[in-house]
Amino acid sequence: MASFTLHGIPVSRGIAIGRAHLLAPAALDVSHYLVPEEHVEAEVERLQQALATVHRELQTLWNELPKDAPTELGAFIDVHVLILSDPMISEAPLDIIRSRHYNAEWALVTQIEELSAQFDEIEDPYLRERKADIQQVAERVLKVLMGSEPLPGPRTEEDELAAQMVVIAHDISPADMLKFRDGSFIGFVTDVGGQNSHTAIVARSLDIPATVGVSQASRLIEQDDWVIIDGDAGVVIVSPSALVLEQYRERQQAAVRARKKLNKLKKTPAVTKDGTPITLLANIELPDDCGPALEAGANGVGLFRSEFLFMGRAANMPSEDEQFEQYRKAVMAMKGRPVTIRTLDIGADKPLDPTEHTALNPALGLRAIRYCLSEPQLFLTQLRAILRASAYGKLRILIPMLAHAFEIEQSLAMIEQAKAELREANIKYDPQVDVGAMIEIPAAALALPMFVRRMNFLSIGTNDLIQYTLAIDRVDYEVAHLYNPLHPAVLQLISMTISAGHKAGIDVAVCGEMAGDAKLTRLLLGMGLKEFSMHWGQLLSVKQEILNSDMSLIVPQTRKILRSMDPNAIADAVLALQTM
Amino acid sequence: MASFTLHGIPVSRGIAIGRAHLLAPAALDVSHYLVPEEHVEAEVERLQQALATVHRELQTLWNELPKDAPTELGAFIDVHVLILSDPMISEAPLDIIRSRHYNAEWALVTQIEELSAQFDEIEDPYLRERKADIQQVAERVLKVLMGSEPLPGPRTEEDELAAQMVVIAHDISPADMLKFRDGSFIGFVTDVGGQNSHTAIVARSLDIPATVGVSQASRLIEQDDWVIIDGDAGVVIVSPSALVLEQYRERQQAAVRARKKLNKLKKTPAVTKDGTPITLLANIELPDDCGPALEAGANGVGLFRSEFLFMGRAANMPSEDEQFEQYRKAVMAMKGRPVTIRTLDIGADKPLDPTEHTALNPALGLRAIRYCLSEPQLFLTQLRAILRASAYGKLRILIPMLAHAFEIEQSLAMIEQAKAELREANIKYDPQVDVGAMIEIPAAALALPMFVRRMNFLSIGTNDLIQYTLAIDRVDYEVAHLYNPLHPAVLQLISMTISAGHKAGIDVAVCGEMAGDAKLTRLLLGMGLKEFSMHWGQLLSVKQEILNSDMSLIVPQTRKILRSMDPNAIADAVLALQTM
Repeated sequence: MASFTLHGIPVSRGIAIGRAHLLAPAALDVSHYLVPEEHVEAEVERLQQALATVHRELQTLWNELPKDAPTELGAFIDVHVLILSDPMISEAPLDIIRSRHYNAEWALVTQIEELSAQFDEIEDPYLRERKADIQQVAERVLKVLMGSEPLPGPRTEEDELAAQMVVIAHDISPADMLKFRDGSFIGFVTDVGGQNSHTAIVARSLDIPATVGVSQASRLIEQDDWVIIDGDAGVVIVSPSALVLEQYRERQQAAVRARKKLNKLKKTPAVTKDGTPITLLANIELPDDCGPALEAGANGVGLFRSEFLFMGRAANMPSEDEQFEQYRKAVMAMKGRPVTIRTLDIGADKPLDPTEHTALNPALGLRAIRYCLSEPQLFLTQLRAILRASAYGKLRILIPMLAHAFEIEQSLAMIEQAKAELREANIKYDPQVDVGAMIEIPAAALALPMFVRRMNFLSIGTNDLIQYTLAIDRVDYEVAHLYNPLHPAVLQLISMTISAGHKAGIDVAVCGEMAGDAKLTRLLLGMGLKEFSMHWGQLLSVKQEILNSDMSLIVPQTRKILRSMDPNAIADAVLALQTM
Repeated sequence: MASFTLHGIPVSRGIAIGRAHLLAPAALDVSHYLVPEEHVEAEVERLQQALATVHRELQTLWNELPKDAPTELGAFIDVHVLILSDPMISEAPLDIIRSRHYNAEWALVTQIEELSAQFDEIEDPYLRERKADIQQVAERVLKVLMGSEPLPGPRTEEDELAAQMVVIAHDISPADMLKFRDGSFIGFVTDVGGQNSHTAIVARSLDIPATVGVSQASRLIEQDDWVIIDGDAGVVIVSPSALVLEQYRERQQAAVRARKKLNKLKKTPAVTKDGTPITLLANIELPDDCGPALEAGANGVGLFRSEFLFMGRAANMPSEDEQFEQYRKAVMAMKGRPVTIRTLDIGADKPLDPTEHTALNPALGLRAIRYCLSEPQLFLTQLRAILRASAYGKLRILIPMLAHAFEIEQSLAMIEQAKAELREANIKYDPQVDVGAMIEIPAAALALPMFVRRMNFLSIGTNDLIQYTLAIDRVDYEVAHLYNPLHPAVLQLISMTISAGHKAGIDVAVCGEMAGDAKLTRLLLGMGLKEFSMHWGQLLSVKQEILNSDMSLIVPQTRKILRSMDPNAIADAVLALQTM
């Protein structure tokens, strides 16, 4: 096979060398895993059962049609039965399980994708749309499959093989990226996306090389092709020659050595040259993340994204006890270091049930605290669980998306109510637990007196703050190029927030992507930031920046930057900061 | 028929008394008009022709199916032929044309809505979804109909009848509201919506009574019921008694008298008690709006929403000449008064082709100037047309959605390029034409030095500015209650913009909804605003406020408001302003 090279946008640094693992965009969020050899026939059986179940369901529907039902209904069902019986659906996916060891859901989705692609090539737009029916039938089968128990399997050779694979996909949904958190894949390539697509953000936080916007990658690269991802250059080399492969292996070794050097900083306190101590915190998604965070030298957790306990569980929400156990686990794991738990940040933009999606502009919809205040029982349950965990270590509560005074008051009142309920039930909690606000809406950054008066600390969510301040959706590729953390308006809002917090004597952290970007460390230091919260994978390179920083040089330069309205001058000055 | 009363949200003041006109939510945007008696049979024929055409189209598709096409495709087509032949589709709409004189599109859509409602009552979710097929067939028929010539009709008795009708609908799309601009209906009632839904905004601007959020209205009210809409109280009285009817007719008369009193102010200059002259401008959508704007005493046009020339014309965009004629018409109509033309504000949120809708958060997507800079030929064509019109009177160019320095520079460069092209072709234009920026993104209001340096005037788009500053979509009913023009952050941004503009010696206008709200007139005056741009229907009540205002009282009170972070105190103080 001849080697060829594809170009895209470098979004997560490093080099990955592995075999291509083509990922079909799933109609539903389905799990992807490889089935161990000995379970393959059982997995085939599982899919056959699901197909038979749907067949029976459709038959029952037919038989139970009301007498006065429109005459077309029977014909509709007939078409779907026909689809279900077509070998393309009833047999091809079974072959995929046998040949590629995909789990049943994945095999079905892969086959449906292939069929859909065939439909896309039909010239008549009307016939082309008929693929919707095939997808509906497939979704019915998937629903049955997902209700059935997946086969358990010990970690096997196949898993080890997966660990040497890179994902090639048209696009990867946030839910899919979530599944890759366990590190079973070593690199990502997508056809679409940009610096701020979910793939990019997650890959960076996992410190896994990724290149996105590689148009046609998922068509040109074939299953099991050898692939090199150069995440520094945004290059993907397919079927590389032995010589190229060797070159890249050397570069990979060099990166490992650099990483080792950084690793020596793990226990070094984060203090600037002139003696200013800085707190480096970790952003985590699940209590198990505390291990690697501590290992990287985190001084605490600056952001525990509690919504990860809830995702994909719309039908089976975690109880107060279950939540409590998870929060306590994190608090205990951090051994006295602070753990900042952000209350549920779900809603219109990250629905609990992804099939529910109605808001025209979900980013501007019922999210986070807005959602929680509209679901008081859900919110109180979480608050009680968090408060109970506060008895076991240092814990802080962080409220997302606050903008209005009444939201601040209602949130604090709910926390008081949760405390009262716990006292009533004689359950212990830390009565001094700190409550903080995310500053991530322009209105909040412009109304800081409202916040510093009532809150014990602030945490700047730069990702959303930038989005709203610039009125752009950073995951929308059509406008992602307008996402600019260095826009003078953004820098002002961040700087104002840090100053207002410190003037009021309360802590201010940054927990958005900016905090983990070593190129921006000195700019934030210059604004007076003392707390940085980021994925643990970014912690050591930020620490290295801090150790080499001299505040007496950085502060005046930052002041100059904050006075400028010229984006080119700002970019140059930020670059100059890095060499000071 | 017994009388009953429904309650909703009052969104546009006044009383309307008329017969109910139930409006089905159309699958496609279709026109709604009544066919004169003598054309009814021809209209029936038009629909029959369309049905026959679709029948032939499906037959042709069947015959031309490729040999290797999936076997299901033929069955799909069969189902759709079956639907098309069902009397519910092939006959019922013809009866609607005959009995209610609806045009063919409207009759078809009405019938489809009824069928859809029947499907919605089917218990099985799978069968319920089958209504999508019926809608697809209907859309095919609609497409054929919309390609055929509608029957022309003189204004008839039926039109006069329509002029006494109120619209009852589940919801009204912006496109539908656009069709009501000619004033053929005298009131609006919708099941959903809030203060800021499209229905509310358009009704207010047309000064037509409206009550929204009247849940179930479209189910409980029947075609041709007599209805009173009390737009002050948010009440809808169905089949009122003679006594109630008389009471409301009296209130209606009183309102007419008050209006007449206001009308006496038409020629009075807008000057505060202490002699500060204020400019009152009109927001218009088409050149014909200049007549009523002048009639209401407007000092010019503050906002010509040029996108209205483009809407619904994705396939047949207005040429440079056609645009030029429209812009010139407006400029000439205003007789030397300034006409401010906003360049195209379309894109992800208001797509030219409404079937194209892909952005996840269109309000944060490729809109307005972002869209125009990505379509330079479209933009240059518009700029040349605008510049050509500038030779015929006083004209200003207004650029929407600017946030970045490079967008300002690119826009100005495009204007220079358009000028150069006109010079090249020896076509005259005003070389001194003023160029201004909409301030409607928080980043713009926070980076004013960037704007005042390069722009000749500013116009604050409060609607969008509030949305982004508070991170809410005001047409999303789940969060519309969070839309608050009096949030301290919003007031600061508006005040900062007015001050920065005046300090730099350039004009600043407000052209959002706030400018037309008489309750906020004094607050804006107190911030130093000298130019208000609004729908002409709101102009006289704003003028009355101005005439009774004393700046020496208003300015100190406004300063106090701007220093406050307490929303209740702000609301009280704004109320107090009105009685000063």
